[in-house]
Amino acid sequence: MGKIGPGPCFRVNGDSGIFSLVQAQDRQVSRDSQSSRRWELVVHGGAGTIEKKQMTDELESIIKKALNEALTVGRQILSEGGAAVHAVERVTVALEDSPLFNAGKGSVFTSTGIHELDASIMEGKSLNAGAVAAVKHIRNPVTAARLVMEASPHILLTGEGAEEFARERDVALVSPEYFYTERRWRQYIARKEREVEMTELESSQDITAEPAEEMYGTVGAVACDKEGNVAAATSTGGTTFKRLGRVGDSPVIGAGTYADNRTCAVSGTGTGEYFIRIAAAHHVSALMAYEGLSVQKACDKVIHEKLSELEGEGGVIAIDAERNMGISLNSEGMYRGWIGQDGNPVAKIYKES
Amino acid sequence: MGKIGPGPCFRVNGDSGIFSLVQAQDRQVSRDSQSSRRWELVVHGGAGTIEKKQMTDELESIIKKALNEALTVGRQILSEGGAAVHAVERVTVALEDSPLFNAGKGSVFTSTGIHELDASIMEGKSLNAGAVAAVKHIRNPVTAARLVMEASPHILLTGEGAEEFARERDVALVSPEYFYTERRWRQYIARKEREVEMTELESSQDITAEPAEEMYGTVGAVACDKEGNVAAATSTGGTTFKRLGRVGDSPVIGAGTYADNRTCAVSGTGTGEYFIRIAAAHHVSALMAYEGLSVQKACDKVIHEKLSELEGEGGVIAIDAERNMGISLNSEGMYRGWIGQDGNPVAKIYKES
Repeated sequence: MGKIGPGPCFRVNGDSGIFSLVQAQDRQVSRDSQSSRRWELVVHGGAGTIEKKQMTDELESIIKKALNEALTVGRQILSEGGAAVHAVERVTVALEDSPLFNAGKGSVFTSTGIHELDASIMEGKSLNAGAVAAVKHIRNPVTAARLVMEASPHILLTGEGAEEFARERDVALVSPEYFYTERRWRQYIARKEREVEMTELESSQDITAEPAEEMYGTVGAVACDKEGNVAAATSTGGTTFKRLGRVGDSPVIGAGTYADNRTCAVSGTGTGEYFIRIAAAHHVSALMAYEGLSVQKACDKVIHEKLSELEGEGGVIAIDAERNMGISLNSEGMYRGWIGQDGNPVAKIYKES
Repeated sequence: MGKIGPGPCFRVNGDSGIFSLVQAQDRQVSRDSQSSRRWELVVHGGAGTIEKKQMTDELESIIKKALNEALTVGRQILSEGGAAVHAVERVTVALEDSPLFNAGKGSVFTSTGIHELDASIMEGKSLNAGAVAAVKHIRNPVTAARLVMEASPHILLTGEGAEEFARERDVALVSPEYFYTERRWRQYIARKEREVEMTELESSQDITAEPAEEMYGTVGAVACDKEGNVAAATSTGGTTFKRLGRVGDSPVIGAGTYADNRTCAVSGTGTGEYFIRIAAAHHVSALMAYEGLSVQKACDKVIHEKLSELEGEGGVIAIDAERNMGISLNSEGMYRGWIGQDGNPVAKIYKES
């Protein structure tokens, strides 16, 4: 049920009791001696109602190509001994730059017909993190998030303050038109027409129901580098027709993104409000730390128990410091892929394949 | 070490193994039959370097009076069978309205000499939550946060979008001058003069070091009502001279605020960035759920291990559905108080008393 096991190149560990710092250190020693050259990277491009019957072979192939290209960016960095945090940032930039995903270029439109972007990044060694929310002119929000982490004492900067910070640090700024894509504009117009029809019926209600195919597309990456350091990054344009200033889980450390070398790195995608309510990303980490679950079982418990209990929808990707990966989703599909030591990228779309 | 046990009116439970939903339901039954009329409320008004030698008897007495007044607001609601979520909102409003604390009236100034306020609220029965961040004109941010929770599908609204929402819902708006207090203005001016002196030395650095007495003052409340439902709320003006758009842990669900009937309700105060990195509030909840700790031991572990490990400073208050409370701090002091069935408010300031 939406559970993808690790590929053949991963060592699979069973649950091994309560995780402690001592065990983590033991693992470190064993890792250093046995597998110091291994690395691993997992990406996602959003979860939602992605059914095979709605896709064309051409679109499938375009999406897989984009996922593979992002994985290749990560391979270049990680195979040469680069840091996980650098890999997840650059991979997320590649996904942001693709018009196919709802992050950076290709982000959905807000209710006022503009774009407001969110992103975050976290490294598992230091537990340091950075995030930006509701930014309108930053070409690559994940890069701004990394600078918040590395060049400020803060973690979360929002709105104009985040843009001012980005400007000071020479982060690439763009005019709002940069984020325009015809596909997202058509989604916006369709949604707007629906709003007008609905206005008299439920004028006092906020908008809750959205066609599922419009909701998702958030991107993210988790990696473990040759040093055994994990990192996670997440970036999104939010939800189509979202109200001004609405912030979902992507820039919320603990909800959309979390990383701790002693447990794992996590990135989530789906109905963001539900991910916040269950502190999804930290929840995966806590289940490994305190219930001794494997990374895959921890992901499954968060998605199939915690998220499903609230009727939330989406998925998470995660990786631990032993390069075991976890992928879990309760939606029809999730754009996702992974790559490891053998250098061959794998991309998947639907729940079962 | 900064650990305050439950007062004489509370039933103290030891750690009782892994907490499960079944146990929670058992507890519910036992609670309904044995103690259906009990309720409990804990508040804080910020943690930091609060040393007895710096305080006058008069100031001590004014602060304790304000804490007691807030507790009395909660007593009125909870003793009459009101909901925990209503109590924590109204208690937090009382603390926001006091010029003594760094939330609402009395908030600190940002680097540009204005106010940007954050708040959040969460209820443990539904795991529903609401928050506003970086708002400039909302008199009681916690009330706006509650409306985001109850009257929108969102959890976190920021900046102008949050204010637009508040305006639509007839939340009281004020001009920025409302938040002015002479004490905070003097802190701002002193800080600004220090910045000018430092500028040539470290012009490219963000501001990290702050006199500890300026940093804190965040307010919060956690309660368990007669029905056994828990809730938490947190509100803050942030840190003196913070940069535009900086958001700390207070409006971040999982960091500054969390509530789950199966574990507890938590509100935190201190160096916000560190609370985000350890997902402090959700961490307390996870330790109860997955390591079977009591609420007090869970608070202690988060503050004295997780927060102290990163050299962060502050404290948390928490309450579980059996009305056991937890208070833990690693700073010199924390304005705090509690009240229960006997109706007598207790207020404390320093670490040991």
